[in-house]
Amino acid sequence: MTAQDRESSTGGSAINAMRSFRRELWFSTPARRAFINITPQVEACLRESGIREGLCLVNAMHITSSVFINDDETGLHHDYDAWLEELAPHEPVGRYRHNLTGEDNADAHLKRQVMGREVVVAVTEGKLDFGPWEQIFYGEFDGRRRKRVLVKIIGG
Amino acid sequence: MTAQDRESSTGGSAINAMRSFRRELWFSTPARRAFINITPQVEACLRESGIREGLCLVNAMHITSSVFINDDETGLHHDYDAWLEELAPHEPVGRYRHNLTGEDNADAHLKRQVMGREVVVAVTEGKLDFGPWEQIFYGEFDGRRRKRVLVKIIGG
Amino acid sequence: MTAQDRESSTGGSAINAMRSFRRELWFSTPARRAFINITPQVEACLRESGIREGLCLVNAMHITSSVFINDDETGLHHDYDAWLEELAPHEPVGRYRHNLTGEDNADAHLKRQVMGREVVVAVTEGKLDFGPWEQIFYGEFDGRRRKRVLVKIIGG
Repeated sequence: MTAQDRESSTGGSAINAMRSFRRELWFSTPARRAFINITPQVEACLRESGIREGLCLVNAMHITSSVFINDDETGLHHDYDAWLEELAPHEPVGRYRHNLTGEDNADAHLKRQVMGREVVVAVTEGKLDFGPWEQIFYGEFDGRRRKRVLVKIIGG
Repeated sequence: MTAQDRESSTGGSAINAMRSFRRELWFSTPARRAFINITPQVEACLRESGIREGLCLVNAMHITSSVFINDDETGLHHDYDAWLEELAPHEPVGRYRHNLTGEDNADAHLKRQVMGREVVVAVTEGKLDFGPWEQIFYGEFDGRRRKRVLVKIIGG
Repeated sequence: MTAQDRESSTGGSAINAMRSFRRELWFSTPARRAFINITPQVEACLRESGIREGLCLVNAMHITSSVFINDDETGLHHDYDAWLEELAPHEPVGRYRHNLTGEDNADAHLKRQVMGREVVVAVTEGKLDFGPWEQIFYGEFDGRRRKRVLVKIIGG
């Protein structure tokens, strides 16, 4: 069934001076829902940090949006949007008890759980240690206002 | 479509002495399903650790429960519960092959994947680096017994 | 509703020399979909790294597969597979816009979001700090070719 058919390894390597880096990225989407490729911004953070080996956390700071890793393909993004609307429809807004608080974004709180709050990416030799198609996205499910993503990198 | 309209940064900063901290939090919910705000306990761990910059992992140690970040609003928690029951109903228990083992909690294993096992939270200046509404929850889907959450913090 | 009825703690402990470790694990599944227990390979990485306290990231390097933690029980894996097919059916492939690119794997991109890209596991006293039933799985949703998982460990 399975085959672990090759391994490549850099083995263990010492880290001299530990550092941490923090930055907020801000977004404001004109539509309620959107997917935005934020890989270049995260790569810029990593370069600025000077960190060569470590972990890079990227998380939505809001609870109606996501950070996730997948493909930069508009057809797929359309499929995600249609699928999430099937799983957790925006309307009728009255179907959600949360919306009794005066909000209309209960569906966004549900969609965000499917797509996830955060990603943790390995940092190796000063780069995001990605597979061939991995790209980091901000997933907005209740936009039309200013919202934030946090980038936190630790390592050396 | 997108606008990265502001950035704030603390830049990279050196960490003098690296430390790690570990604690288990125990829970026993009287009902099969429950959502519990565990933010105060995680904040207490962080204070005790003395760690100022780093990463804080909080994960369910059981495979029928979740740790996730969202809103502390009872209407929303009701919506989550109803939605998860729609996506992965508890009954009839015979619909799941896992329940042939004598268990009746297959649905809990499914619900936990939607809500997630863990969160990783940035630690900045000795605090959980949260957006305005982020709170950490333990999500129980097969309770009525003692179960654990792990808090592990590394940094300096 | 809740009871935090016991805590155990090792408190904070100093880490002398920080290290990082990286390895790729390769898989090729004969079927389109499969679940593979990769816990022994991750444990071998940890032993080789010599790291005693830290964090271990395990992530799919491909965007049509998952790494997740759950139970090593074949009935449950059957339930996951049937449930994911319900939530995001493979066929008809024409229902997904992504498949207009010539791919037939749009469903795999959706399934992977439900099951997740990665897990972060605490490392304590040189071991994966697991609850009683936690095991790490590679979840393949578009197999029949060589694909990779990344293991990155940092700590001391």
